[in-house]
Amino acid sequence: MANRIRVGIAGYGNLGRGAEAAIAQSDDMQLVGVFTRRNPGDIKLLDDSIPVHALDNIAEFRDAIDVLILCGGSKNDLPEQGPSLAAMFTTIDSFDTHAKIPDYFAAVDKAAVSHGNTAIIAVGWDPGLFSINRLYGEAILPDGATYTFWGKGLSQGHSDALRRVPGVKGAVQYTVPVPAAVDQVRSGSQPTLTTRQKHTRECFVVLEEGANADTVKEAIVTMPDYFADYDTSVSFISSDELKRDHAAMPHGGFVIRSGKTGNGDQQVMEYSLALESNPGFTSSVLVAYARAAYRLRKMGQTGAKTVFDVPPGLLSPKTPAELRKALL
Amino acid sequence: MANRIRVGIAGYGNLGRGAEAAIAQSDDMQLVGVFTRRNPGDIKLLDDSIPVHALDNIAEFRDAIDVLILCGGSKNDLPEQGPSLAAMFTTIDSFDTHAKIPDYFAAVDKAAVSHGNTAIIAVGWDPGLFSINRLYGEAILPDGATYTFWGKGLSQGHSDALRRVPGVKGAVQYTVPVPAAVDQVRSGSQPTLTTRQKHTRECFVVLEEGANADTVKEAIVTMPDYFADYDTSVSFISSDELKRDHAAMPHGGFVIRSGKTGNGDQQVMEYSLALESNPGFTSSVLVAYARAAYRLRKMGQTGAKTVFDVPPGLLSPKTPAELRKALL
Repeated sequence: MANRIRVGIAGYGNLGRGAEAAIAQSDDMQLVGVFTRRNPGDIKLLDDSIPVHALDNIAEFRDAIDVLILCGGSKNDLPEQGPSLAAMFTTIDSFDTHAKIPDYFAAVDKAAVSHGNTAIIAVGWDPGLFSINRLYGEAILPDGATYTFWGKGLSQGHSDALRRVPGVKGAVQYTVPVPAAVDQVRSGSQPTLTTRQKHTRECFVVLEEGANADTVKEAIVTMPDYFADYDTSVSFISSDELKRDHAAMPHGGFVIRSGKTGNGDQQVMEYSLALESNPGFTSSVLVAYARAAYRLRKMGQTGAKTVFDVPPGLLSPKTPAELRKALL
Repeated sequence: MANRIRVGIAGYGNLGRGAEAAIAQSDDMQLVGVFTRRNPGDIKLLDDSIPVHALDNIAEFRDAIDVLILCGGSKNDLPEQGPSLAAMFTTIDSFDTHAKIPDYFAAVDKAAVSHGNTAIIAVGWDPGLFSINRLYGEAILPDGATYTFWGKGLSQGHSDALRRVPGVKGAVQYTVPVPAAVDQVRSGSQPTLTTRQKHTRECFVVLEEGANADTVKEAIVTMPDYFADYDTSVSFISSDELKRDHAAMPHGGFVIRSGKTGNGDQQVMEYSLALESNPGFTSSVLVAYARAAYRLRKMGQTGAKTVFDVPPGLLSPKTPAELRKALL
């Protein structure tokens, strides 16, 4: 393709690696470089013909990059990188600290507007595709209720919490939706569900040598915020089993809107994802929205945006006429 | 609410009735009138305080209506009404003859552009919400396959085809997805499925007096385009049973995108609808998009549009800041 969109990646963990693979699947894009805070020489890309640069030097690449995909974390990287990079580039990120989105949006918007860039924040599946489906559900069925279930999937935050328990050497935690609750919601009955009724938590834990299993288990199941409000199972496994059986990062879930129209007719809208690799999918969403950010920027729509502001058609490499003919 | 969106409805069948009910569920809208080709005195609205007018006089209401929802049929009404009404009003319609969408879009676009109106065509669930999910699926997982299943639901077109068979007094047809095919698709295996493998067709038929059941059944199951390529069941019932058990218009279906990212990880995206009333739901989609059309018109985005051109946020009565805080 003659004029491919020139994309950069800032940060090369699971998400950055996923973004590299997703760009390789996109004929209308070309990856011009990966930027890292680590020593560039230590980074091994999937495609070793692509250059790796120090993130500190990224300002030199302002004219070489159409869209920069920020693959840093929401806790430590993005609060600083989001605004500073949106001042130099049109950006995409997966900021996912729900409670801090309004502040983050404001900071990125200020930087993007004053430098004439476009920045789509909080892109991925939740926030992201799930958010869009919550919005469609409530706009189309105003008399109703929305339910979000997560899993079965590996929760990074809960796995980290397990690893902080004294006596735990390694651990993973899976969030599992309760099938009976999902069925009840799908039936259209609009049940009121407690936290405990919606999800269970399955923990697989490797003990430190000499640690007491009962003490560790008790510390886990009573941990406030993370586990106390859930039915939590704890299984003790070996380091080898942890490595062999729990290295993948599956995830997914459901957004269900159940509502009534007209003469009380029950209508149920459901969106679900079943993902073998959470970062692989999230980065594919980022790459599709990178295409949209590039186009919004060309249309003069600058400033911070979210998935709510992006017409679906801008995600596709096809023209509007092709989309109407092939997909409508 | 101080400045409610003033909405009109053109055509008062199942869809028009559904639109009236959906507007009543929307605090930011007010229904200013229903327009009909029948004798206005013969139309009985759900809310009898709302005036009914002759469609022929609709030009007089140009300044009284912000958005007009076209509730006529795709075959006989919309090809003429779509362009002529888009010359006078900002409009929404549910044009659903997939093959004719490009021509219809061009005709409506010409009328809307030259009169400074906005016209969102082909709104509903298929075309509509299903189309959006086909687009998201293919944009996010370019290496994959998309599957659309319809049902279980009443097919109007196939029911009409049954009624044209000699010896048939009354009939309904349900389209039913084959569970094994749906499961295969959900597994991520990307199967190649024939027409027969995806859906079965269930027919409930009332015979004319003296008609031969075997002859009628044979005429149905061998009918090209409609039934010959499917496993079709035919059950003969009484007129009373038809009226008692088959008066509802349920429908729904699934759009499934199955694709691979990165190192061959399987990712499955699924969108599904389970609708007790197809026209009740379709008209609720139309009303949400009427809100979007009104806003696009105010933003100066005139001409014909489809769901692909509409940012999700425009469907909601909430402000962008409220949406980011509550739903992202």
